Amino acid sequence: MSRAHEAKVLSADESDPVKLGWMVGAPPPADKIIRFTDPDYFSFPKMRWTVCNFRQLMPTVNVSRGLGAPVPLERAIDESIDAVTFTPLGGDAEMTWEQSLAANYTDGIVVMHDGKIVYERYFGCLDEAGQHGAMSVTKSLTGLMGEMLVAEGKLDENAKVASIVPELAGSAFGDATVKQVLEMTTGLRYSEDYADPNADVWIYSAAGSPLPKPEGYTGPRSYFEYLQTVRKQGEHGAAFGYKTINTDALGWIVARVTGQSVAEFMSERIWSKMGAEQDAYYTVDSTGTPFAGGGFNAGLRDMARLGQILLDDGVVDGQRLIPEAAIARIRAGGDKAAFDKAGYALLKGWSYRGMWWITNNDHGAYMARGVHGQALYIDPRARVVIARFSSHPTAGNAANDPTSLPAYEALARHLMK
Amino acid sequence: MSRAHEAKVLSADESDPVKLGWMVGAPPPADKIIRFTDPDYFSFPKMRWTVCNFRQLMPTVNVSRGLGAPVPLERAIDESIDAVTFTPLGGDAEMTWEQSLAANYTDGIVVMHDGKIVYERYFGCLDEAGQHGAMSVTKSLTGLMGEMLVAEGKLDENAKVASIVPELAGSAFGDATVKQVLEMTTGLRYSEDYADPNADVWIYSAAGSPLPKPEGYTGPRSYFEYLQTVRKQGEHGAAFGYKTINTDALGWIVARVTGQSVAEFMSERIWSKMGAEQDAYYTVDSTGTPFAGGGFNAGLRDMARLGQILLDDGVVDGQRLIPEAAIARIRAGGDKAAFDKAGYALLKGWSYRGMWWITNNDHGAYMARGVHGQALYIDPRARVVIARFSSHPTAGNAANDPTSLPAYEALARHLMK
Repeated sequence: MSRAHEAKVLSADESDPVKLGWMVGAPPPADKIIRFTDPDYFSFPKMRWTVCNFRQLMPTVNVSRGLGAPVPLERAIDESIDAVTFTPLGGDAEMTWEQSLAANYTDGIVVMHDGKIVYERYFGCLDEAGQHGAMSVTKSLTGLMGEMLVAEGKLDENAKVASIVPELAGSAFGDATVKQVLEMTTGLRYSEDYADPNADVWIYSAAGSPLPKPEGYTGPRSYFEYLQTVRKQGEHGAAFGYKTINTDALGWIVARVTGQSVAEFMSERIWSKMGAEQDAYYTVDSTGTPFAGGGFNAGLRDMARLGQILLDDGVVDGQRLIPEAAIARIRAGGDKAAFDKAGYALLKGWSYRGMWWITNNDHGAYMARGVHGQALYIDPRARVVIARFSSHPTAGNAANDPTSLPAYEALARHLMK
Repeated sequence: MSRAHEAKVLSADESDPVKLGWMVGAPPPADKIIRFTDPDYFSFPKMRWTVCNFRQLMPTVNVSRGLGAPVPLERAIDESIDAVTFTPLGGDAEMTWEQSLAANYTDGIVVMHDGKIVYERYFGCLDEAGQHGAMSVTKSLTGLMGEMLVAEGKLDENAKVASIVPELAGSAFGDATVKQVLEMTTGLRYSEDYADPNADVWIYSAAGSPLPKPEGYTGPRSYFEYLQTVRKQGEHGAAFGYKTINTDALGWIVARVTGQSVAEFMSERIWSKMGAEQDAYYTVDSTGTPFAGGGFNAGLRDMARLGQILLDDGVVDGQRLIPEAAIARIRAGGDKAAFDKAGYALLKGWSYRGMWWITNNDHGAYMARGVHGQALYIDPRARVVIARFSSHPTAGNAANDPTSLPAYEALARHLMK
């Protein structure tokens, strides 16, 4: 994106969904209503309201936090954080942490250090009692569930997918291994180019839409129906290719192995046991299947709680929720050479493992990442967790990484002092 | 319904949605999938799954419980309750309380006495961590919000509706008073005969549906749009006529007076302050308007908490949430003669006030009631609250009242001993 073009985009302040008045009033003015059937309900700037309100637009399934008392997070607010400076990737002028929030269209950010909240801010559509779409951060949760099952010996990472989900035998997934799915090294004919109206992602999106299908529609009517139609392209295991459908195939595997949907499994194993403040939820397709590739929504502090459990090797309040081996496998990272071929210019030296993004930096930091700037960043060496929800105008994280990744590293160094 | 017909209907056990396997499996078998677009998604027996899972089928808006710790309800379980006997209305053979649960297709029931849970059971689709459609119990919550505003001097019950919501000036509601709306004595041309495919309720339902409208649809596209089309029939104040649209008009009034939707107002004033265990939610139309006439869903214990606050004249844990006057007005009841004309054969001597059903029995009991057997029953003299969710095959409560109302009275007498 050129600077000339950037100049025309509304700033974070100008596009603040509260200031723009989306969906305010009884009823809202006609030009302030956002409907699921609007072609632009997820386009900037409307999208800045939508990310906090997915359940007002579409059906969802609950991820119960259980009924007990939330476990409050300790606070040790560090007033010096706003002034932390860093140099954006590819830039030369320094920027402060505080400036980065608006640059990234941040809706909410929580930083934990040594298990305590040191920083917390909300903007626009979000507050501490709200929930926000995690977008592809969802993938990392699904990957975590898969890695948990592998670590517990309930899922063989070398098994062929067809041996677990026979319905996928005739698809490209059939002869892929679980590990190839987990690492997204499957060879799939699938285009996720959102700019191409004929891209497979749109067929997938139509399949997963809970809305009634148009007259004469003959395509797949659910995520699982779509997955069965995916054809092979190339060889499995040859290259990393970031494709959402791998995660939904993994969601199917998790469901078949556990007898629970990813929503039920996430609630039973983690959300209801980590002292969460709020229920979370997934969007669902017309058969009630949670969108394992991108449909998770949650409160920001609860995302931070999850990050803290990962930082603490799977234990919260002395109780083990996640096998240490599952987290160790993720942190070990994936094939750097395979990742490098995928050409992420801003993520040199990174890798991908268990549906997490591994920085391979000297802190061993790793991330969950979702479009428009969703992030769960875990820095084991600095003992820092950063949970961020945002609504950057540009979907791809290459647009916000320059003012995010070096900010995270600078903040981690600052907190280690 | 004749006994011959009843004999053909599946029993509570036979129609148990868990046993029938609705929406179980990844994916569920084709004949076990329930879709919002199915014409029978809310018909028995599928309805027995749907009542616990409205949000999996349609868009919703959250009613936050806040982020603090729930206030646990004290328990003093009374094992003798199951054996309490009563004689069903119009019957001659005694029935036990326990038998009444299956007779009423009960999904969950909580009984509180002197502020403690003395009885709690779950069946079918519901458990303590689940949520269930309250159906027209929702109306009583909207009525309560209206009475709160009246008691606080923020809403003049003698004001004409058009003076508060000018958009309704041209409709039948325009020259009705707030009190007439609250008591459902408006004169409206509106048929709620669900058996008549041309009844107004279906036009209303189409207006409120969040689904895309069919090609060529020219009707109203939201609850509020529909309300503006309602024509007058007869005079306001002349007779009680139970019509859902009064409640949605009241929801609009509440929204206009408070600047909050009924979901926001309910959360801010009650749900986030009563120690609720779970968030509640409303279904919404395509403009995000909560269905004030029937769209509320909640956990059963939280419904019991609300009932207990009413029993305690608006106070919980020493904190006043509801003006005492608002509850006193409801308990005072409405015009018995006007109610009598409406011809409820099983509700002789009852009246209707503030969208609550007043038994006028010697305990001063009053109720919120919803189709298929939803109930919140408050007996001030016996200090008993009964919260029940159910999924009786027949919508109208006349089908379950015979085995419910005398059971409630018998239980209240039993607990007073």
